[in-house]
Amino acid sequence: MKINFSHKTELRVRYGETDQMGYCYYGNYAQYFEVGRVEALRALGMSYKQLEDKGVMLPVSDFSVKYKHPAKYDDALTIETNITEIRGARLAFDYTIHNEAGQLIATAHTTLVFVAKETMRPISPPTSFSSIIQPYEQN
Amino acid sequence: MKINFSHKTELRVRYGETDQMGYCYYGNYAQYFEVGRVEALRALGMSYKQLEDKGVMLPVSDFSVKYKHPAKYDDALTIETNITEIRGARLAFDYTIHNEAGQLIATAHTTLVFVAKETMRPISPPTSFSSIIQPYEQN
Amino acid sequence: MKINFSHKTELRVRYGETDQMGYCYYGNYAQYFEVGRVEALRALGMSYKQLEDKGVMLPVSDFSVKYKHPAKYDDALTIETNITEIRGARLAFDYTIHNEAGQLIATAHTTLVFVAKETMRPISPPTSFSSIIQPYEQN
Amino acid sequence: MKINFSHKTELRVRYGETDQMGYCYYGNYAQYFEVGRVEALRALGMSYKQLEDKGVMLPVSDFSVKYKHPAKYDDALTIETNITEIRGARLAFDYTIHNEAGQLIATAHTTLVFVAKETMRPISPPTSFSSIIQPYEQN
Repeated sequence: MKINFSHKTELRVRYGETDQMGYCYYGNYAQYFEVGRVEALRALGMSYKQLEDKGVMLPVSDFSVKYKHPAKYDDALTIETNITEIRGARLAFDYTIHNEAGQLIATAHTTLVFVAKETMRPISPPTSFSSIIQPYEQN
Repeated sequence: MKINFSHKTELRVRYGETDQMGYCYYGNYAQYFEVGRVEALRALGMSYKQLEDKGVMLPVSDFSVKYKHPAKYDDALTIETNITEIRGARLAFDYTIHNEAGQLIATAHTTLVFVAKETMRPISPPTSFSSIIQPYEQN
Repeated sequence: MKINFSHKTELRVRYGETDQMGYCYYGNYAQYFEVGRVEALRALGMSYKQLEDKGVMLPVSDFSVKYKHPAKYDDALTIETNITEIRGARLAFDYTIHNEAGQLIATAHTTLVFVAKETMRPISPPTSFSSIIQPYEQN
Repeated sequence: MKINFSHKTELRVRYGETDQMGYCYYGNYAQYFEVGRVEALRALGMSYKQLEDKGVMLPVSDFSVKYKHPAKYDDALTIETNITEIRGARLAFDYTIHNEAGQLIATAHTTLVFVAKETMRPISPPTSFSSIIQPYEQN
């Protein structure tokens, strides 16, 4: 099922996230995308923390990113998070990051999987999530 | 030009690299692949540090990873790094990670780009690198 | 010279900053204090980024922290940063972190040193900094 | 009770652990000290992982570090970890870090607390630990 939900969040590149090239280290973007999807879910009315408290986890099964332009220390970045598809236990997100000058910094994609904490096996999305996402489903 | 060079290195999952799921956080693998390629280059006789000292940088332009099985705290992981192709300024790496029990933890791919430090523009690989990699080129 | 300048900033504990105890990993607080002092300096009208661009660096020479109560995933933390003293090249900061419930999470202290980028030697604070901090000096 | 147990372990500064000063970021040392104490405990015959599996956790209650000389990318660092004291639930460690040239990079101290996983309250060290550390107790 295609989904069309988009949300923007901002954060600044921390000094400890730079490397000696003077770039934001390529490995730190994973945290930025995590912030993006947590805030996207919060905007939908769903707390990832509460989800876990109910015994549902949402680990990442695959992640890809293209680095278009370096992000630098103290850059205020805008992360656009798009929830694009739900299929069985799998939930897909696309992301773009822009800097203040409007330059495209990175594009990325992740797939996450709803998993039961006890069994660590894939499960259907909880109804609390399904009902929240339903208005954004595409025919 | 296809290349066939493979190298294995080991590391342990640090406590600070776990998350509250009890997994190695998905964002920390980027550092593991970096360790893998630095050690692969060192095994070839090339120090990434010396490369930078000579004004050549090697930023990552794209990165993708599939998480197959969670790595846990204190797991001794084997990272196999394969240098697979050089095309113009671009150098491609494939990776697999296995745990001590032989389970496949993750597979990944990165493309890096030789860049001049001064201009930040793509450049041909330095001859020091070309001569080292030549024995591993495939027809 | 004693200084009395205080500033508060907020941030949320990211998932990747937790560890398998379910706590914010003890090593991640250093980044939080860095965010606190960068935002304190920005509130004073001084950009740490501009300072570096002018050839002045401000590395940390000592750091101590007491962990009072665990911070958890998604906690909204308030970091209070106090600039407490300037003595020669050395600038001292105290910090407290509280969670939303008002619990004291941590207290900390850092000393930073003004250093010339070229020589890596301690230097007097730049006048741009001295003039900004002067109104907060204590007799 | 004073303790006199010392252990050395080595690690290399990863690229992602540098910052744009070209130094190992001050916040990353906490992970190095964690590696130091985990390997010190392993050398004693105690696995921190097994300790947690038995319901005992060992969070850090305070941490202080003095940065003496910058560590740089790819530096091979030697971390000397000293277990110095056990008092009730509290276990104290001192650390020094040197680089390959023998320069002192940092000194540090941490106090950890034995805590029951279920109650999150301080407890006496498990007998498995006490018996292992006993030979190193000082009168």
